[in-house]
Amino acid sequence: MDDAQILARLEAVIAERRAGDPSASYVAKLNARGIGKIAQKVGEEATEVVIAALSGDKAELVGEAADLVFHLLVLLSAKGVALADVTAELQRREGVSGIAEKASRSS
Amino acid sequence: MDDAQILARLEAVIAERRAGDPSASYVAKLNARGIGKIAQKVGEEATEVVIAALSGDKAELVGEAADLVFHLLVLLSAKGVALADVTAELQRREGVSGIAEKASRSS
Amino acid sequence: MDDAQILARLEAVIAERRAGDPSASYVAKLNARGIGKIAQKVGEEATEVVIAALSGDKAELVGEAADLVFHLLVLLSAKGVALADVTAELQRREGVSGIAEKASRSS
Amino acid sequence: MDDAQILARLEAVIAERRAGDPSASYVAKLNARGIGKIAQKVGEEATEVVIAALSGDKAELVGEAADLVFHLLVLLSAKGVALADVTAELQRREGVSGIAEKASRSS
Repeated sequence: MDDAQILARLEAVIAERRAGDPSASYVAKLNARGIGKIAQKVGEEATEVVIAALSGDKAELVGEAADLVFHLLVLLSAKGVALADVTAELQRREGVSGIAEKASRSS
Repeated sequence: MDDAQILARLEAVIAERRAGDPSASYVAKLNARGIGKIAQKVGEEATEVVIAALSGDKAELVGEAADLVFHLLVLLSAKGVALADVTAELQRREGVSGIAEKASRSS
Repeated sequence: MDDAQILARLEAVIAERRAGDPSASYVAKLNARGIGKIAQKVGEEATEVVIAALSGDKAELVGEAADLVFHLLVLLSAKGVALADVTAELQRREGVSGIAEKASRSS
Repeated sequence: MDDAQILARLEAVIAERRAGDPSASYVAKLNARGIGKIAQKVGEEATEVVIAALSGDKAELVGEAADLVFHLLVLLSAKGVALADVTAELQRREGVSGIAEKASRSS
């Protein structure tokens, strides 16, 4: 499978498990605890990515980035947002004016 | 383009711009400022995702998630990590024992 | 002034400026932009503290910690929480069972 | 005890426990795990402050702010920075040009 297939499959698995048994599925457990808890995991994993980037090796960064992407997908799913919406937004920015567009509104 | 093509193209654009002119490219500017600055943007964008998930609408969440994915790709690129390494890790976890594997090591 | 006087004075100054002119006061400007924006600054400054602790010198850490404390005070003020409520909670935990109490509920 | 006394006492307790038995003291355990782990806790607690400010009640915000202050003190202690250095920096900024000084360098 290529990147897209893996992410699409992960997104489908997360969607399927969302309403499952919280005692049997980590995704169901997170959803049962609410958006605040899922959002918290995204914040925590981002902190771990920051730390791995500054003081870890490549394997740690890969692991933490995977955790961040996973929890971001769980959060998007819980909010009814598809990964395709996010990639479409990335493509739109690129299409409109290139990545440089980001610079104009970024601090 | 599908999700994977968009992400692959974005990754390629970021790689190409990394060593470019910091006055002309946001990616080059971030790289010129160092890993600490890029990591900081990942942390900031994650905070904005958290806030959008809790108090924003779907469009805000899509925009902030796009910002987070973009800066995560910039960070991975700066550290010499391919998105494929991250998706391979996600696939490995899924393959080994399902997403439930995450639960066993998660707090 | 000792630590407490400085923090108490800062808290008073923040309270006084909260409802001021957003064009003349940073605190008023943040409050005019809403809780989400103030919370975002707390998240951002915490990320900067993390980065300074891992890759900066002591002076940077002092500066980022000051930024974090400042924005935390702005957030508490905006939510109607006094610093004394927070220190009372810290004292309560210490009083009940020592800092070890934290360990029992921490992941 | 007033705010300053509580924070000063907490700082002293943390300093005393830093080199203690990791199996008996949460502070010693964190220090044994290294700066990265302590910094991670600061990032996590800041995320919880953000979430409590946006979706919790005052009691939750007080609890999360206490957690953040506690872990910030643990981090400062581990890096050899005194709380007095941080409050001196806050006082210096106020003294030089008022809190408005922050505005000039803030994004």
